[in-house]
Amino acid sequence: MIVSIDPSTGATVEVLDVPAEDLDRIGDRAHAAHRDLEAAGRPGRAAMLRAMAAALEDRRTALVAVADRETGLGRQRLNTELTRTAYQLGFFADVLDDGAYLEATIDQAGTTPMGPRPDLRRMLVPLGPVAVFGAANFPFAFSVPGGDTASALAAGCPVIAKVHPAHPATSLRSRDALLAGARAAGLHTDVVSLVYSDDTAARLVQHPDITAVGFTGSVRVGRLLADLAAARPAPIPFYGELGAVNAVVVGRAAARDRGAQIGDGLAASFMLGVGQFCTKPGIALIPSGTAGAALTQALTDRVAAAGAGIMLSERIAGAYADGAGRLLAAPGVDVLARGGDAPAEDLQGFQGFWGSPLLLRSRPDALDGPLLEECFGPALILVEYDTDDDALATLRRFGPALTVTVHADDEDRPAAARLLDHAHRTAGRVVWNGYPTGVAVTWAMHHGGPYPATTNALHTSVGAGAIRRWLRPVCFQDVPQDLLPDELRDEPSCGPVPRRVNGTLMLGG
Amino acid sequence: MIVSIDPSTGATVEVLDVPAEDLDRIGDRAHAAHRDLEAAGRPGRAAMLRAMAAALEDRRTALVAVADRETGLGRQRLNTELTRTAYQLGFFADVLDDGAYLEATIDQAGTTPMGPRPDLRRMLVPLGPVAVFGAANFPFAFSVPGGDTASALAAGCPVIAKVHPAHPATSLRSRDALLAGARAAGLHTDVVSLVYSDDTAARLVQHPDITAVGFTGSVRVGRLLADLAAARPAPIPFYGELGAVNAVVVGRAAARDRGAQIGDGLAASFMLGVGQFCTKPGIALIPSGTAGAALTQALTDRVAAAGAGIMLSERIAGAYADGAGRLLAAPGVDVLARGGDAPAEDLQGFQGFWGSPLLLRSRPDALDGPLLEECFGPALILVEYDTDDDALATLRRFGPALTVTVHADDEDRPAAARLLDHAHRTAGRVVWNGYPTGVAVTWAMHHGGPYPATTNALHTSVGAGAIRRWLRPVCFQDVPQDLLPDELRDEPSCGPVPRRVNGTLMLGG
Repeated sequence: MIVSIDPSTGATVEVLDVPAEDLDRIGDRAHAAHRDLEAAGRPGRAAMLRAMAAALEDRRTALVAVADRETGLGRQRLNTELTRTAYQLGFFADVLDDGAYLEATIDQAGTTPMGPRPDLRRMLVPLGPVAVFGAANFPFAFSVPGGDTASALAAGCPVIAKVHPAHPATSLRSRDALLAGARAAGLHTDVVSLVYSDDTAARLVQHPDITAVGFTGSVRVGRLLADLAAARPAPIPFYGELGAVNAVVVGRAAARDRGAQIGDGLAASFMLGVGQFCTKPGIALIPSGTAGAALTQALTDRVAAAGAGIMLSERIAGAYADGAGRLLAAPGVDVLARGGDAPAEDLQGFQGFWGSPLLLRSRPDALDGPLLEECFGPALILVEYDTDDDALATLRRFGPALTVTVHADDEDRPAAARLLDHAHRTAGRVVWNGYPTGVAVTWAMHHGGPYPATTNALHTSVGAGAIRRWLRPVCFQDVPQDLLPDELRDEPSCGPVPRRVNGTLMLGG
Repeated sequence: MIVSIDPSTGATVEVLDVPAEDLDRIGDRAHAAHRDLEAAGRPGRAAMLRAMAAALEDRRTALVAVADRETGLGRQRLNTELTRTAYQLGFFADVLDDGAYLEATIDQAGTTPMGPRPDLRRMLVPLGPVAVFGAANFPFAFSVPGGDTASALAAGCPVIAKVHPAHPATSLRSRDALLAGARAAGLHTDVVSLVYSDDTAARLVQHPDITAVGFTGSVRVGRLLADLAAARPAPIPFYGELGAVNAVVVGRAAARDRGAQIGDGLAASFMLGVGQFCTKPGIALIPSGTAGAALTQALTDRVAAAGAGIMLSERIAGAYADGAGRLLAAPGVDVLARGGDAPAEDLQGFQGFWGSPLLLRSRPDALDGPLLEECFGPALILVEYDTDDDALATLRRFGPALTVTVHADDEDRPAAARLLDHAHRTAGRVVWNGYPTGVAVTWAMHHGGPYPATTNALHTSVGAGAIRRWLRPVCFQDVPQDLLPDELRDEPSCGPVPRRVNGTLMLGG
């Protein structure tokens, strides 16, 4: 039995009666689903993903209602997130229609400087059943119906999803929607299965039938599971999107000329969703002296005027309180502003899980320990720099991150070029005159970065490239046409896809 | 001091006076080289790779001579391998010229169902300095000047190569050639550095400046190093091409109609280079009864007529003797043929490191333990099957491999289709009516496979795709044109590359 909790009160939303978690049975079913997904081909899987999107839309009101009760994220945000999630399923259907993701490559038999060469044809094939760990902070978009699931199903990999305890009812109903979509498209196997318990989580990563893992969550848990994946008798890839301190650097001229505007934007970005985004700015480097004053003032005003917000779960609110406490206790740190306190208990004696925004300032020479680590929640640390060299030196103090943001006007260009050069070596996304929160589902998105941003810097969890995580190449040597995968035949029956033939890239359409 | 040994006699070839291995110094130099390789751009790196190929050609006679003394592989084979190695460097220059490997993707600012979207531009950038472990069995093609180095340098990653103790002098002179090529192309930094000692090897994998590792070698050493890479404070990708039992399945009609021919081909393949190929067939499944008789006879004759061969090193010859001993001692195994013995000591009392071919037969129900593991050297195990189902069941007993080969005539097609379906799920390359030895350097090659074939099934160590291992995506959001990498600008100065723009793939040329 799984208990779903309302974080705004601490009360029980519902008690879920879920089946016992028999991984062997789930594994067998996933293998059947794997065959089904393969047999459906790209057109069949694309139709399935679009039917899944439609099934989510059909259940929108009920899904948003239960997610709101479980997460406290609010219906507006959750409606937007569901739109994104349905769009994402359709987007991966587009990726399938396009077909370039297969990296289909044909080298016809010929002669090379090393002698005769056989006919060689390479494309990507699905790995097999994969595990997906849902995130607390996105009950749809990074959970059971989210990007890991959408990209894995597109690839042809059935998903066994570990439900996040912050939203079990949402997860269960999302899975019902996905399976309804699959059935509508003619796939009747368990293309998505769920497990709930943390004990099963570790066994899932170690299960011989699991071929890869997608994870979004904390460094602590992600590293633990990544280590299990690496220590298996047969190691498997572990794609963990963990955490990082996202830095925002504001150039001197930018701060001087539009400091209040940047301060407002930065405040909105770091407090968005009660700071519960992996792309939340955690540190802002701003010029010292009068150039930075308007920015600091705007930030301070916005934070002081902000109220406390409901966090996703008791554990997350507790971790934020602990993290904020560590920041406050760090030497060289002072408080610029605090948001409102949590409300008192309600008439029923319920008290939800609240987090209050916090704006701190640290001396640059005090940056160490907790100040260099992610604090998940609405906390932002300002650090002032004197010279452009100081700004770069301070940025270098931080490890790799999902994002680095630079605000710069024309005068700031020379310094900004150096900042960008450093940023693109350590971050997955470099943002110019913007804010890092908001990760668009597009062909060009990259949501990743070197450790600890993720456990695998080569891959992304958002955008078209996310499908590559669930695929491996196979080369077919001299294999007859009728025994080749369709996309490697001279005349594919499902229509042309982009291919490289004898070294020359050819468009599909 | 490093001692180079002639495996045909056990005598010292030469004593190398190499500098002490200061990884910090090497790391600093690699960072300088990283900047140089980046600054060169794709055209500069392509020119460098071609100059390196020319420098190897210039030194061909001397390189082949020293490699022959160190490895006993023979000048003909080593000349072919050097041709392949030089070709491979030029091939990666072609990959750079083509530019599709960058996966350049542009989504211009616009509106989506989720609201406005910024300008997003993604491409792959080099990881940084990487470590490459040379293989014993390919002193050129999979060692210091080999595919890992060529693909890493193409990507823009400087290489710190761990020299294999079987050919230190070849490695040292190969590196001299590579640096001469780099200088000729205007790169004067240490784009390739060498380390020699096994102690340094472990520290190299753990060194904070190393961003990825390429390895070709045994499961035992590969797994040890992979575990070190995974256990680092910041884990890095480890691309180990380890080992596997490459299966060859011969259909009933194929064996009946051209058994002698297949037997000859199989004998040549498994004894090639004294069986010292990672793609060496280790097991052959053949029909029982008269259908398999001609094949078995041809194989037996060829093996009985074969002499012993010089193996690469004392350690490898010893490991082969141990492995062969384990196979011979396994229950259910009988000897069909042995090649000649090693010659007696020569007049100087020298005795080289010899390996003698071995043809064994195992009962299908006896396949277990050492029979399921790779034996590196000229050993082949025949297993007879009664029915097509038996053949598939026997194939399933083996783990993932670099290759699976199927020989089939028209009558065999239904069974062969099932074998291929299984094969493409567990092998990196599926060979039809051929032999697995020989791995062409082409766009479509895949040299890899699930563990233990490699430690990372998503990537290849041969072919154009090998470059992907050393690259990570970065997304640039709203970054001005002049601060973008050239290939992401609206008008790249180095000419167009294939790009996806607003979802549509566009050719470069």
